[in-house]
Amino acid sequence: MALLCPVKLKNILPLVNSTDIVTQEMLDYMMLYLEPTTIVDTECLKVGPPSIESEYDGAISVPDVLRVAKEAEQAGYHGIFINCFGDPGVRAVREYVRIPVFGGFEPSVHLALGLCDRIGIVTLRKNVAPMFRGNIAKAGMKERIVSLRYTSLSLEECCQTELLIKAVYDECLKAITEDGVEGFILGCTAMVGVAEGVKAALMKDGYDIPVVEAAQAALKLLELSAQMSLRHSNITYMTPPHLP
Amino acid sequence: MALLCPVKLKNILPLVNSTDIVTQEMLDYMMLYLEPTTIVDTECLKVGPPSIESEYDGAISVPDVLRVAKEAEQAGYHGIFINCFGDPGVRAVREYVRIPVFGGFEPSVHLALGLCDRIGIVTLRKNVAPMFRGNIAKAGMKERIVSLRYTSLSLEECCQTELLIKAVYDECLKAITEDGVEGFILGCTAMVGVAEGVKAALMKDGYDIPVVEAAQAALKLLELSAQMSLRHSNITYMTPPHLP
Amino acid sequence: MALLCPVKLKNILPLVNSTDIVTQEMLDYMMLYLEPTTIVDTECLKVGPPSIESEYDGAISVPDVLRVAKEAEQAGYHGIFINCFGDPGVRAVREYVRIPVFGGFEPSVHLALGLCDRIGIVTLRKNVAPMFRGNIAKAGMKERIVSLRYTSLSLEECCQTELLIKAVYDECLKAITEDGVEGFILGCTAMVGVAEGVKAALMKDGYDIPVVEAAQAALKLLELSAQMSLRHSNITYMTPPHLP
Amino acid sequence: MALLCPVKLKNILPLVNSTDIVTQEMLDYMMLYLEPTTIVDTECLKVGPPSIESEYDGAISVPDVLRVAKEAEQAGYHGIFINCFGDPGVRAVREYVRIPVFGGFEPSVHLALGLCDRIGIVTLRKNVAPMFRGNIAKAGMKERIVSLRYTSLSLEECCQTELLIKAVYDECLKAITEDGVEGFILGCTAMVGVAEGVKAALMKDGYDIPVVEAAQAALKLLELSAQMSLRHSNITYMTPPHLP
Amino acid sequence: MALLCPVKLKNILPLVNSTDIVTQEMLDYMMLYLEPTTIVDTECLKVGPPSIESEYDGAISVPDVLRVAKEAEQAGYHGIFINCFGDPGVRAVREYVRIPVFGGFEPSVHLALGLCDRIGIVTLRKNVAPMFRGNIAKAGMKERIVSLRYTSLSLEECCQTELLIKAVYDECLKAITEDGVEGFILGCTAMVGVAEGVKAALMKDGYDIPVVEAAQAALKLLELSAQMSLRHSNITYMTPPHLP
Amino acid sequence: MALLCPVKLKNILPLVNSTDIVTQEMLDYMMLYLEPTTIVDTECLKVGPPSIESEYDGAISVPDVLRVAKEAEQAGYHGIFINCFGDPGVRAVREYVRIPVFGGFEPSVHLALGLCDRIGIVTLRKNVAPMFRGNIAKAGMKERIVSLRYTSLSLEECCQTELLIKAVYDECLKAITEDGVEGFILGCTAMVGVAEGVKAALMKDGYDIPVVEAAQAALKLLELSAQMSLRHSNITYMTPPHLP
Repeated sequence: MALLCPVKLKNILPLVNSTDIVTQEMLDYMMLYLEPTTIVDTECLKVGPPSIESEYDGAISVPDVLRVAKEAEQAGYHGIFINCFGDPGVRAVREYVRIPVFGGFEPSVHLALGLCDRIGIVTLRKNVAPMFRGNIAKAGMKERIVSLRYTSLSLEECCQTELLIKAVYDECLKAITEDGVEGFILGCTAMVGVAEGVKAALMKDGYDIPVVEAAQAALKLLELSAQMSLRHSNITYMTPPHLP
Repeated sequence: MALLCPVKLKNILPLVNSTDIVTQEMLDYMMLYLEPTTIVDTECLKVGPPSIESEYDGAISVPDVLRVAKEAEQAGYHGIFINCFGDPGVRAVREYVRIPVFGGFEPSVHLALGLCDRIGIVTLRKNVAPMFRGNIAKAGMKERIVSLRYTSLSLEECCQTELLIKAVYDECLKAITEDGVEGFILGCTAMVGVAEGVKAALMKDGYDIPVVEAAQAALKLLELSAQMSLRHSNITYMTPPHLP
Repeated sequence: MALLCPVKLKNILPLVNSTDIVTQEMLDYMMLYLEPTTIVDTECLKVGPPSIESEYDGAISVPDVLRVAKEAEQAGYHGIFINCFGDPGVRAVREYVRIPVFGGFEPSVHLALGLCDRIGIVTLRKNVAPMFRGNIAKAGMKERIVSLRYTSLSLEECCQTELLIKAVYDECLKAITEDGVEGFILGCTAMVGVAEGVKAALMKDGYDIPVVEAAQAALKLLELSAQMSLRHSNITYMTPPHLP
Repeated sequence: MALLCPVKLKNILPLVNSTDIVTQEMLDYMMLYLEPTTIVDTECLKVGPPSIESEYDGAISVPDVLRVAKEAEQAGYHGIFINCFGDPGVRAVREYVRIPVFGGFEPSVHLALGLCDRIGIVTLRKNVAPMFRGNIAKAGMKERIVSLRYTSLSLEECCQTELLIKAVYDECLKAITEDGVEGFILGCTAMVGVAEGVKAALMKDGYDIPVVEAAQAALKLLELSAQMSLRHSNITYMTPPHLP
Repeated sequence: MALLCPVKLKNILPLVNSTDIVTQEMLDYMMLYLEPTTIVDTECLKVGPPSIESEYDGAISVPDVLRVAKEAEQAGYHGIFINCFGDPGVRAVREYVRIPVFGGFEPSVHLALGLCDRIGIVTLRKNVAPMFRGNIAKAGMKERIVSLRYTSLSLEECCQTELLIKAVYDECLKAITEDGVEGFILGCTAMVGVAEGVKAALMKDGYDIPVVEAAQAALKLLELSAQMSLRHSNITYMTPPHLP
Repeated sequence: MALLCPVKLKNILPLVNSTDIVTQEMLDYMMLYLEPTTIVDTECLKVGPPSIESEYDGAISVPDVLRVAKEAEQAGYHGIFINCFGDPGVRAVREYVRIPVFGGFEPSVHLALGLCDRIGIVTLRKNVAPMFRGNIAKAGMKERIVSLRYTSLSLEECCQTELLIKAVYDECLKAITEDGVEGFILGCTAMVGVAEGVKAALMKDGYDIPVVEAAQAALKLLELSAQMSLRHSNITYMTPPHLP
């Protein structure tokens, strides 16, 4: 039953872009906790949005995500990461392929659930908050995810790691004292090094609490799923009657 | 403030098809309760699924639904009906246009809420059940929508009205006696005449209870929204930062 | 099936008073969005409270509300508006008549649900807050109505429209920033012109969000119910076994 | 602080009737667990329904219940039992008097909560089910009260104790096996001797589980409230601004 | 059926300590509202923690609590109070004996439920907050217990009654204004005289609201349970298959 | 940051027994999906129950579980598995050590959440059902875990694998058709080979759905936690103030 070949995962960036935007540093960071033999291949979309900052962006990414995902399954990949915390197309893709599929939201929640009672999500900007709240409700997680906050940084500022760490840390402190949060998830899959910075800053205040990074969580749980031969239910995810 | 011109609504069929499949009988049925001056124009997609029977189908319909919706707003329509009970793209379209937008699910729930305490949905086939359950959870309606049932008819059988009425009625009886349902919504926007047949059959059993038809509900509430100048919140539905 | 005669609605003020307190301005405001042919007749109680500011007031109004409602049904009215946001007697009246019945709470919620995710109610004074919370819980709306606030005005101050608009607007701002509210309902059926004032003030802050006025919502949804022949379930609302 | 005089409770039958319908056997049963010094005086209404079998009945009882309750408070009673499982007027009366007030629903729930996890209510007839469900929701008890059932007896049959015990017992068995109920409340305050009969029958099946009788629960908790000087919150129950 | 002998209750302090720490003043306070004939005997543990300030402390107390409880049942006691607001071992003990068992949490909630809609708990220190939240969730009371607060006093300061009253009162005020609390429970069973002090201070602010003391609530409800022959369900609390 | 030495986990059987009852077959099964370098050492209790079939059993196991866990942490283990689906002592142990701790319940839920919407648990016998329901409620998982069923086998029959597979499969079928379950967790950590048998039987019926085995899930997620340096929050799990 155990998988004999190395785990091979497809990292789909649900964006139209060159894969050049995925630097080696980002890949190394995402793959930090994977087995040395695990392979992660990255692919961007041919048709889709420049970035995902709304339900609109998510929606226009999905048709091409479906194509890439199907090709990945046919090429023998063992799992698919749709690299966005909004989980765009995750449910549709699961109807379409029979290998494990994760976005960023679900797997980071699954890890955080075992680490604290009251989870907070801190994301970059407010546009995605309603979409995230919808995902929390759909996942039945309103009792456990008790806070959703975002920085007030501009998109440009979000790219400056130190600035971002400081802004996320400030929201974390508010979430702890005002919302009773006991552990965090970073609500974006492209925050290289931020979890470590925030965790260290919180530690200085005496808070030795988890700060889950979503891309790492997703890839690691996909690897685990492949190793354990876990596969989503065909009652929840029925194959669509009409396929191309 | 009152609207001086007649209300003009766009009926988007989220399918690739000729508009010929929308017969005059169907249009008359949908528009039965509208003001005589209200105009409903129907449009199908250029790119999309042949029908919507899964999350996959819904997902591939949305990009072209967005295009048609935007064109409708620019052409001066007062509201948009995405003609599917799964509400595909409703949230994305609301970010993209500033006129009222409904699929079939939400408006039929809003009408049913005023008519009974415990609502049941009866739809055609099981494939859409998980998607509908997700929409119920996202809408925060699990306390009021207490039953979701579907017939075991084939797609072909679903087209025979008498057979369909009988099958839906059978599920309604089970929903009343086993789930404590007190009023119904038909979970598909293409069931011409079924509500009346089911309602009459239930009446014979002494149940004088609502059977809400979703397309009629959606168009009537869009008309009302146009008349009352209601428009969705720009906090819930922020304009996407990047638009074509 | 379509109603051939004009819709005729009864507006029951659940108060002992002369109908003189209902000025033409108030009637015009309430009826702003109705069809020109729709008729609204107003009637006060012979026995009841001077105003409704508590569960006590609501309770002593209901027996005479029942009488007026029954007479209205017998006189051929198509719907009944119990003109109070606390919905006093709505459920009892629905057991007693077979025409549509609304107070102010339910129909404004039904409209707001389609306009935003997180609804806030702002009412005049704190006395009614526990009653409103009970209605929210009974309606299963705690996930969607996330804020209930009231002004600190005296009853006299509440009659000064500009003062009231300012006080309600202040509560709205707090509800947006502290409670995450995305759209509003005014929690009183006698706030002529306040919705427009509050909406305009919020718009200046960049919030293009709904402010639902309850009396307009109720009358419009009763008109719609009459047009669509909607009638409440006789499973939820069984005819009482002993009637006078 | 301890009460020096005997506890004196008012038992309000929310019905128009002679007090003759309250037999000595019924009074003895209700008072079975009270201190020997506790006094219970019974009073019917001058204006009200012949019995309470609907929200309509409840509503028309409340104004005169308010009068009797106020007179009882003024006469020095220490607590008020509104003798009906539907809790008609309980909240309005609490706004009006500052002594403890219970109907049958709340106190029987408070006792049952300490005896089992999953509570079931069995009542006489279906008419009251929607009203009871509303009370359960308002009380925030949907997680603990997992079943609401009623017999199919006629009103006349309900008066035959043995028949009633058998019918309630049958519903209890269904509630245990189909709904996972672990303890019961009888959903009517006039079921003399039924709790004992049902409890004994369940015991024969190996179920040593509680069957709470509501009138006994209410009077005993009112006695306790008087002894402990417990009084309802004036934030939840504000005095109405206008009183006769 | 009525109990002829005096009620005899066992007060188990789930601590290793001499019973000398239970002063006569504390006993008198706890027993203030009991029948003069009711007997309360106190017993500490031979093996257990010095105090209960964590789940760890609760856990190590339970085996010896089970022993004392069983001995109490065998010695003819009518009820068992596990004298801690965290309810350590309550469920395990109920499986082991067939007489009523309460910790401090459940009975104080049952009394508070009848006195206000929105309950707040104020306890001494933050360590116990996650344990209390777990108990609230398990009890299905998240809709009614809307606030959980604690003082920032040191353990030593907690022993100074005036200081403690002031600190608890301060948290109560915040709970009223920020969390909408309408009545309180003190979240510790060893706060002699604090409820009265807090209640008086709140009364000066116009808040005539309940402040339930948990040890008094528990003993009084155990006395009532004994008098009414109430006993926990053997479906919820099955006898363990293997017993010493 | 990555762990350089092999992961070393402690498998605590919360029972008094010789470790001989843990056969090599059981160990191999539990460890099936672990890295080849991961070490699992098993230890039984010196003081505790013979098996865990009640809250009583769980409670008397915890003090010695705490001792073994602390010794494991001091001996350099990277994670602790309390080998029981009831999660006895998990929260207390997390307060006491700073390495990851799992029982069987939580980690199997975390894996199942990613595989289907509606989870069912099937366990051996009914005694543990109330304890499991408490854990589900405390975990805030009532929306996702929609069914809890048990076989009617005797303890002896539970040891016959084929009989057990058949009995669990029968409950799974009922859970699918009656409760709408879409994926399963086996509610006991000692069911070697059952998951595979049940999964195969369900597959023959066309249900390609997950059947999560709890011991495998727990050990794999502990391994992952060690690899990712995940550690529980010190806000949720504060170190107890008094330690031996």
